Amino acid sequence: MVAMHVAFAGSPLDRADHLRGDAPAIAALMNVSARLLRMEGLDPVVGDDGALSWGVLAEVADNTELVFLGLLDGRACFAPAPQQGSVAPPNPRLWQALASLSGPDMAIYGMARSLVGWHARHRFCAQCGAPTAPAKGGWQRNCTSEACRAEHFPRTDPVTIMLVEHEGNLLLGRQPRFPAKRFSALAGFVEPGETIEEAVAREVLEEAGVRVRDVSYVTSQPWPFPSSLMIACHSHADNPAITIDANELEDACWFTRAEVAAAMAGDEEAPFIAPPPSAVAYVLLRWWLDNAS
Amino acid sequence: MVAMHVAFAGSPLDRADHLRGDAPAIAALMNVSARLLRMEGLDPVVGDDGALSWGVLAEVADNTELVFLGLLDGRACFAPAPQQGSVAPPNPRLWQALASLSGPDMAIYGMARSLVGWHARHRFCAQCGAPTAPAKGGWQRNCTSEACRAEHFPRTDPVTIMLVEHEGNLLLGRQPRFPAKRFSALAGFVEPGETIEEAVAREVLEEAGVRVRDVSYVTSQPWPFPSSLMIACHSHADNPAITIDANELEDACWFTRAEVAAAMAGDEEAPFIAPPPSAVAYVLLRWWLDNAS
Repeated sequence: MVAMHVAFAGSPLDRADHLRGDAPAIAALMNVSARLLRMEGLDPVVGDDGALSWGVLAEVADNTELVFLGLLDGRACFAPAPQQGSVAPPNPRLWQALASLSGPDMAIYGMARSLVGWHARHRFCAQCGAPTAPAKGGWQRNCTSEACRAEHFPRTDPVTIMLVEHEGNLLLGRQPRFPAKRFSALAGFVEPGETIEEAVAREVLEEAGVRVRDVSYVTSQPWPFPSSLMIACHSHADNPAITIDANELEDACWFTRAEVAAAMAGDEEAPFIAPPPSAVAYVLLRWWLDNAS
Repeated sequence: MVAMHVAFAGSPLDRADHLRGDAPAIAALMNVSARLLRMEGLDPVVGDDGALSWGVLAEVADNTELVFLGLLDGRACFAPAPQQGSVAPPNPRLWQALASLSGPDMAIYGMARSLVGWHARHRFCAQCGAPTAPAKGGWQRNCTSEACRAEHFPRTDPVTIMLVEHEGNLLLGRQPRFPAKRFSALAGFVEPGETIEEAVAREVLEEAGVRVRDVSYVTSQPWPFPSSLMIACHSHADNPAITIDANELEDACWFTRAEVAAAMAGDEEAPFIAPPPSAVAYVLLRWWLDNAS
């Protein structure tokens, strides 16, 4: 297993799980030395130094729900949950803000965004419709109805993303929402009742009509838009005939190793534009160029 | 990658994703030749032949929410969503019912249980509290409030479960709820903002105080209690000193290869009782005995 850097991973925070269930400890940590991750809704506040901006808890309204992110250099860190959330994918303005962040700052922000976004979208109990209230330092929400008392936990959605190889060529696709000329790895959510390997095979068959075998795991990435766990895999196809599902993909093609290498090098003559380095698809393609047979 | 059989995987159903969004097609499939998976709440109905029991749609009340499971031998299969769900783990009576099922029947049941349980627990919108209604053949629920219109999707929770190896010995633990003498692999949910590998390292450190390196993926399993995706990994430890988190584990020990082999063989003299074959932990231990150095 080669260590690969993926964006939004490598958080320096100690999650301090043992403190979450200890309400008096959490309350005691909410003091003047606690750090507040400044956010504008789900977006980060980035300082003039290009780093995440931190403040103190007194900056937010008294009724703000604060999520305990963990300990950083021994100090407790909290993030404010907005009243409303969104599952919208990141926009160019957000990527611009993230571009100046260090790797550790990206990881802290990603975790905070997923968590506070979950709070904003789960203020009611899915089981009975009553309001919910945060618990366990913000790692849980409980139904406030005496008759229900359901417990709710932050959601993390596993997504498979896969390279498909046939005779040294790679199958990549483009979704209608992609920028011009962009191609990337196919991807899709893992559904109830299937393994990672079954999800990979189903997605490639559904989207491109291609059957795959020998699915292998490569790496993973937390992706906070809103709360995905990207599970990156490699697979082989015996028959390269493509049948596109036009609801999912605008196009899908096989690319040679030279074409993939050119795209990854940013070559203007390349037949497609590679995914950005923050995407695990970029890491998958880099891994393939460096390692695959 | 060695193919490993895991329980609840290997469904023979064609999920027929392209039909889900086609409301007229789904309505047309709900005819006299459609198959109804008979269930009692979340539990399966098992026939005298030890197989899942199938009936026809006319057996259920008109207002029953039916989930489109997919196609089996060209026939549409549906499962009924109960009014109320539960996140309770399977009880011995359920395991007894499952014991007679074939592998494909286990997979069909597991998928159905996760899905209909999700419906039963999500009859209200977590974003605004209004009632939700099923959509896309039961693969989505939509908020019925004009002002909200949030879309909700079946939940799948990634869980890491891991072997930890030190000088040829394995770290296994027991939770207080386990049957007597049972030890199994440590496990825990993947949280927002971490990779699979980071989740493995965090869980082992939290539960047993052991630092691991070189985490590698082994296999995965859908686990429908209520909706987990088990992600089974292997890792190495350099320092075997154990510090148990008593909130999570009752005990944790290092076992030799011979001890693990004895437990997996069901030897009465073995120092512990292995997890059952339906658990991915069993598959992990079998893989380790057969493959690890």
